[in-house]
Amino acid sequence: MIMGRTLKEIAAYLNAELLGDETVAITDIKGIEEAGPGDITFISNPKYRKQLETTAASAVLAPPGIVNPRINLLILPDPYSAVAKLLALFYPEEAHPGHISEKALIEEGAVVSSHAHIDPGVYISCGARIERGAVLYPGVFVGAGAVIGEDSVLYPNVSIYRRCIIGKRVILHAGVVIGADGFGFTRPGVENLKFPQIGIVQIDDDVEVGANSTIDRGALNKTWIQRGVKIDNLVQVGHNVVIGEDTVIAAQVGIAGSTKIGRGVIIGGQAGFAGHITIGDHVMVAGQSGVHEDVPPNQVVSGTPHLPHREWLRAASCFPRLPEMRKNVGSLTKRLETLENVVHNIKKDK
Amino acid sequence: MIMGRTLKEIAAYLNAELLGDETVAITDIKGIEEAGPGDITFISNPKYRKQLETTAASAVLAPPGIVNPRINLLILPDPYSAVAKLLALFYPEEAHPGHISEKALIEEGAVVSSHAHIDPGVYISCGARIERGAVLYPGVFVGAGAVIGEDSVLYPNVSIYRRCIIGKRVILHAGVVIGADGFGFTRPGVENLKFPQIGIVQIDDDVEVGANSTIDRGALNKTWIQRGVKIDNLVQVGHNVVIGEDTVIAAQVGIAGSTKIGRGVIIGGQAGFAGHITIGDHVMVAGQSGVHEDVPPNQVVSGTPHLPHREWLRAASCFPRLPEMRKNVGSLTKRLETLENVVHNIKKDK
Amino acid sequence: MIMGRTLKEIAAYLNAELLGDETVAITDIKGIEEAGPGDITFISNPKYRKQLETTAASAVLAPPGIVNPRINLLILPDPYSAVAKLLALFYPEEAHPGHISEKALIEEGAVVSSHAHIDPGVYISCGARIERGAVLYPGVFVGAGAVIGEDSVLYPNVSIYRRCIIGKRVILHAGVVIGADGFGFTRPGVENLKFPQIGIVQIDDDVEVGANSTIDRGALNKTWIQRGVKIDNLVQVGHNVVIGEDTVIAAQVGIAGSTKIGRGVIIGGQAGFAGHITIGDHVMVAGQSGVHEDVPPNQVVSGTPHLPHREWLRAASCFPRLPEMRKNVGSLTKRLETLENVVHNIKKDK
Repeated sequence: MIMGRTLKEIAAYLNAELLGDETVAITDIKGIEEAGPGDITFISNPKYRKQLETTAASAVLAPPGIVNPRINLLILPDPYSAVAKLLALFYPEEAHPGHISEKALIEEGAVVSSHAHIDPGVYISCGARIERGAVLYPGVFVGAGAVIGEDSVLYPNVSIYRRCIIGKRVILHAGVVIGADGFGFTRPGVENLKFPQIGIVQIDDDVEVGANSTIDRGALNKTWIQRGVKIDNLVQVGHNVVIGEDTVIAAQVGIAGSTKIGRGVIIGGQAGFAGHITIGDHVMVAGQSGVHEDVPPNQVVSGTPHLPHREWLRAASCFPRLPEMRKNVGSLTKRLETLENVVHNIKKDK
Repeated sequence: MIMGRTLKEIAAYLNAELLGDETVAITDIKGIEEAGPGDITFISNPKYRKQLETTAASAVLAPPGIVNPRINLLILPDPYSAVAKLLALFYPEEAHPGHISEKALIEEGAVVSSHAHIDPGVYISCGARIERGAVLYPGVFVGAGAVIGEDSVLYPNVSIYRRCIIGKRVILHAGVVIGADGFGFTRPGVENLKFPQIGIVQIDDDVEVGANSTIDRGALNKTWIQRGVKIDNLVQVGHNVVIGEDTVIAAQVGIAGSTKIGRGVIIGGQAGFAGHITIGDHVMVAGQSGVHEDVPPNQVVSGTPHLPHREWLRAASCFPRLPEMRKNVGSLTKRLETLENVVHNIKKDK
Repeated sequence: MIMGRTLKEIAAYLNAELLGDETVAITDIKGIEEAGPGDITFISNPKYRKQLETTAASAVLAPPGIVNPRINLLILPDPYSAVAKLLALFYPEEAHPGHISEKALIEEGAVVSSHAHIDPGVYISCGARIERGAVLYPGVFVGAGAVIGEDSVLYPNVSIYRRCIIGKRVILHAGVVIGADGFGFTRPGVENLKFPQIGIVQIDDDVEVGANSTIDRGALNKTWIQRGVKIDNLVQVGHNVVIGEDTVIAAQVGIAGSTKIGRGVIIGGQAGFAGHITIGDHVMVAGQSGVHEDVPPNQVVSGTPHLPHREWLRAASCFPRLPEMRKNVGSLTKRLETLENVVHNIKKDK
């Protein structure tokens, strides 16, 4: 954190409506439970809205409609985005001086910008290129011919296999593996001859990949993560997968080989995708879903096998009532049988 | 293994009832299938109880109620706990001499106890503190200002991000990542502006975390793993999650952001938790469950979406009979239609 | 790629039937969408068969039955296997000169073949043995007494715990952890006393393990991965598990402790297995299945809890119709009630 600012300055920076004392000094940003005097906090998830009554914060970022005379409010349409901007202002990213450690291991034939920051214990193979502003933490491995673009950050123990291409401003968290061999074997379970994986991974600008996630190299061509994609921890991306711009993928999702995911798709945690399918733009996939076939654009799907979300909700709400349904069907059968006999006797009697 | 002991000595150490020859020398501890002369083994899972007839072990730890004249028995209420104690006696932990390798990379301003054990290839950043008895294997990275408590063991290639706090006697297995950025973006799939993650991870004493698991730093505050928690491999813990004391989490579980898990909770493998929910103390969650809302204390839940376990069992047992039920409903409908016509005709005829 | 070859030479090498111009020179192998003049490609998945009409490739490997005069064809029963062989011919594996870097950290008492290739930043503990032809990338850790067999490749940041045994021609991708402690605690959630894990992992010849997968050491005995097993990324294998020869396991599968998987088993992604169960030879398990009890050989199973695949398909196809079934049962109940009253009145009237 650099310095305090008045609420007035912050309101101007965020283009927010100020309800309260504009002279209050703000020195830090905290969660609503932890915030105290000098802190600004925010209300975003309605679940936490009642805490407005008890917070000790000096000010609260809140959406339109909130009025509360006991506290200074900054009103704006998206408080969560506003906090993100404020955090970037108060907590600028760790500066990396752009220094190439003598204890880094750089093979001959690697090209490393003198404006890159290379920590001790980094390994850069022959033919690799590291561009200006890139930051490589200890334990990072960059394979032969790989490229790390400008201002990208590779946290400790990231492994980049040969010839993979990482764009600009990409963040790869610790333990990420880019470009390991895709899972290809002939006649699986019988022959298991390895299908050599000679493709690459291409990661475009502004992508972030969470800790210990793995993105396999293409078999013949490339696995391609397009601009702005955000991938959480422990996610598996199979060979030849293509993920469209701005798509967001939560933790532990698995995407099998050659599947194409559209732009702006949102995928919940632990969901799984079969191989060789196509998911349209702006699809939403609920957590733990199993997606086995193409999904057209703009759909919301849930369940294994996946269904349109509303259909799944209705079916899932029936699931706990299955024993009752089964009992009802049994009792209906008996009552019908009885009635059939009664009617049969009436007919006979006539 | 240090040395042999007589069965009498072992019985006294474990406070067990001895049925058999107290002079037998025991030199090792093995599974019931592998044990031979000189070995002690145990019966815990009833599935393996019949192997008492065939084992070649010199003695068996067994629960009350077991009688078998062909073999020496040590009777005690919890044979599994007894073996754990016996193993700790026979196989004391690897001693680490407390040596700071000259090939470790320690930034200026880091404080490393002279009684810590730091292997070559370890990286310790400025402002970090490593306490006495801590063991850091090669490839471990400790970020700026992080703390590693007394007698904790960090296996190879563990990454600890800046300012995270690891307690005493904590075990972090190889590849664990503590404190990577939580997954927070504004207007996901549309704007994807990064919400800076300025919080930390705090891990209290006596926690163990399995290989390649990931625990993200809090967005503003802390992600908190409390005393005695045991986490298996490849588990994902999101930002701001709190996990209560002694909770046990099997492999590949995923816990989304801000969820609070109580004390003594038991979670089966591959289960998933939505964000912002609260799981009560001593809850049990079956493997692969999907928990989407609060669970009160002491419940047992299963399924996606989760149900009380018994309810889920009953519903799941109906699932394979759905085709039959559906057929029955179809046939009931036809029979009822027929009967309705018959009755209609009877009425008309009257 | 080394050099071009004529289609005639390739047909002879693969023992394929050539339909077209045998003099065409082939210089590379590509996917059917990317292939151009000079490239050979293949048709394997029928989904891509229509692209035969548009591909710019100079030749196509195809199964019997394909005829297309516009393009040169090599006909053989298994085009996918043929491409694998061709790739191995055109793209021989990276040669590793067999060099032990002076910047590797090798403890006294370790035995490293002078024909092994050890990169800088590798750590080899006392008593470990590295056999000829083995390749260890930077950041690899080999624990005390562990063995790495001939011609095995350990990619960056692989961790092998003490005493584990890796066979010949094994491939361990980046971030793999072999031999971390199994997950064993007494009275879980209450006592949580660690059950010391003194066993090992044994990996036999020709096994491949994907990036960031974890295989735990046995509690007392061994965890055993048999010859030819192929494991994808982010897979968890618990302590004492045995996996039979040639079994193939897709990404993110979890196998709990002491479970035995047969030979030639095929397991889809994200499937989970309970502990202490036995899966027969040549079983197939669908992705995301939850297998809770023994499965006899040659079965195909799906779902959680798992069912025979056909049974699961039939039941799953009823699931979306549950709301309709429920409505039908309700309406049947009402109609039956009405009819019962009508019949009752008819009887009374008589």
